[in-house]
Amino acid sequence: MKKVNSSPTMKDVAREAGVALGTVSKVVNGLPVREPYKHKVEDAIRKLDYHVNSYAQGFKSNRTDTVALLVPNLWDPFFSILTHHINRELQARRCRMFLCTTDFNPDLEQEYVTMLQNNKVDGIIGLTYNPQLEVPEGIPFVSIDRSMGPHIPCVASDNFQGGQMAAEKLADLGCTNVAFLRTGSSLNNEPNKRKAGFENGCLSRKLNYEMLILDDGEPYDKFDRFLAEHIECGRSYFDGIFCVTDKVAYHVIKTLRNLQIKVPEDVQVIGFDGIRQLGDLDPVCSSIVQPVEEIAQTCIGLLFREFPPGRLPLICLPVTYTYGGTTRE
Amino acid sequence: MKKVNSSPTMKDVAREAGVALGTVSKVVNGLPVREPYKHKVEDAIRKLDYHVNSYAQGFKSNRTDTVALLVPNLWDPFFSILTHHINRELQARRCRMFLCTTDFNPDLEQEYVTMLQNNKVDGIIGLTYNPQLEVPEGIPFVSIDRSMGPHIPCVASDNFQGGQMAAEKLADLGCTNVAFLRTGSSLNNEPNKRKAGFENGCLSRKLNYEMLILDDGEPYDKFDRFLAEHIECGRSYFDGIFCVTDKVAYHVIKTLRNLQIKVPEDVQVIGFDGIRQLGDLDPVCSSIVQPVEEIAQTCIGLLFREFPPGRLPLICLPVTYTYGGTTRE
Repeated sequence: MKKVNSSPTMKDVAREAGVALGTVSKVVNGLPVREPYKHKVEDAIRKLDYHVNSYAQGFKSNRTDTVALLVPNLWDPFFSILTHHINRELQARRCRMFLCTTDFNPDLEQEYVTMLQNNKVDGIIGLTYNPQLEVPEGIPFVSIDRSMGPHIPCVASDNFQGGQMAAEKLADLGCTNVAFLRTGSSLNNEPNKRKAGFENGCLSRKLNYEMLILDDGEPYDKFDRFLAEHIECGRSYFDGIFCVTDKVAYHVIKTLRNLQIKVPEDVQVIGFDGIRQLGDLDPVCSSIVQPVEEIAQTCIGLLFREFPPGRLPLICLPVTYTYGGTTRE
Repeated sequence: MKKVNSSPTMKDVAREAGVALGTVSKVVNGLPVREPYKHKVEDAIRKLDYHVNSYAQGFKSNRTDTVALLVPNLWDPFFSILTHHINRELQARRCRMFLCTTDFNPDLEQEYVTMLQNNKVDGIIGLTYNPQLEVPEGIPFVSIDRSMGPHIPCVASDNFQGGQMAAEKLADLGCTNVAFLRTGSSLNNEPNKRKAGFENGCLSRKLNYEMLILDDGEPYDKFDRFLAEHIECGRSYFDGIFCVTDKVAYHVIKTLRNLQIKVPEDVQVIGFDGIRQLGDLDPVCSSIVQPVEEIAQTCIGLLFREFPPGRLPLICLPVTYTYGGTTRE
């Protein structure tokens, strides 16, 4: 790549203004300088079109106003909307964002974190899949959805509450035989609490429930077989289904309709995430909505220490239920 | 924010290894150093857990291995998938990405470009909405979808070809009365060529055509009225509709179905972009697919000058048609 043309330096400004280098430095850094000198420097800055070399600044102050974000990818709507909100929050604080997509690759996650140490970022926000991820001391790190020990704060939705809310909502909507369909990471992470919350809700509301939990990477057609096996004489045994994500719900609704089962008339379906079609159009399904904007704000608030100090290992933010056409209301 | 703890410097390594500072510098920068000295330095680097301070490096060499990307937002699936591919291409070249979302705000776009000058990025890729955007000389800039003059290369899909392809496809599918529905930026940009290409295709294939072009920000219900006005006795006058984006197509298909018009039996609909439901599931509609990965590769190839030198103001990459359930095939 072409090298950037050489720009005027602080020395050039000092020469042009006829003042000492230290005087220019003071003006650039907002320190008090007597008016006539200040004016001379400002005139020289304008004349030479001098811009502060941020790299030199970063080198000196150890502050880079840069935060790195690690996410698996950007084509998944949940990751893209999360990235969007984190980016906006950082912008509001005049902070830049390094975006690092990891494709769920634990080695790449570790490589990034190590690389970021060399780049002296002010902090890292990570939604990672490496349970052994080593975060160097001295770099503030906020984890999304994974508890990584007492010294690294974790921000997530209240996934347990969300699971419980789904069961209670299905009970309120008149369901009696319900199922929980899950796929995803087998790691010990926050979203896995959706299952325990759902079970809790089923028990307290006396719902009959079954669960099908796929391993990472297992194809969704296991869900299809499971659903087909629970249909007899054109009627589904289940009248309510809670899916671990809206993406799973999208697939399940399609499968049910292919099996001539009406959603929501015969089976009501609730997903998790609160994704909208094409970013901001209709909801994909009735869903437990994650407070993505609040998650972003909380992560950045933690990095910038705007929360009261102390041991803050896990912050679970409340979720809400939203009707999206795949339940009766 | 907490300052990063002070790390060992090159001087510490030189002291530990018992060699001159210049020797450490040579080893770090991959220059030839006699074996025994090289080993001493490498041992000291390991012992002290020394990491190269990239800011110091950027300061010295004027190379930052950082490219900035300006896009309006990340919740729109087209922008998020474009950002994803650009991020991956940069990663493959060990380059970092600054993500700058602009919310279609021309002032913010200009502010970013000016700010990025100070940050000495190696280059900028921008999908911008400011026709007067001033790009400082000395920063390589590649524009997506907007021609910004002969010295700034522009990368886009072949939008004219795409529009023409849509008309020809509708003709092949037996349509005779077609419509083009557009919304979006009123700027003189590449996607606007979809209209001219469509007209051309209609004329060459002798299709009757009408167009409805909304201004930026006008609500979609103008489309609804237009469609309703062209329905008589439950039959649509149009048998084929080309929508400027998949997002418009998504809305139009819903409106038609609400009007009891069957898609694709009564009206066939083609969109533009090639977006998939929830990132990677079903297509939203039959569509003219943009080669997003190739757009990303081309932008970065241009920044890194891997294309033959010369005046390269506009590169239009070929699009393809993909069936997505809203046409007969």
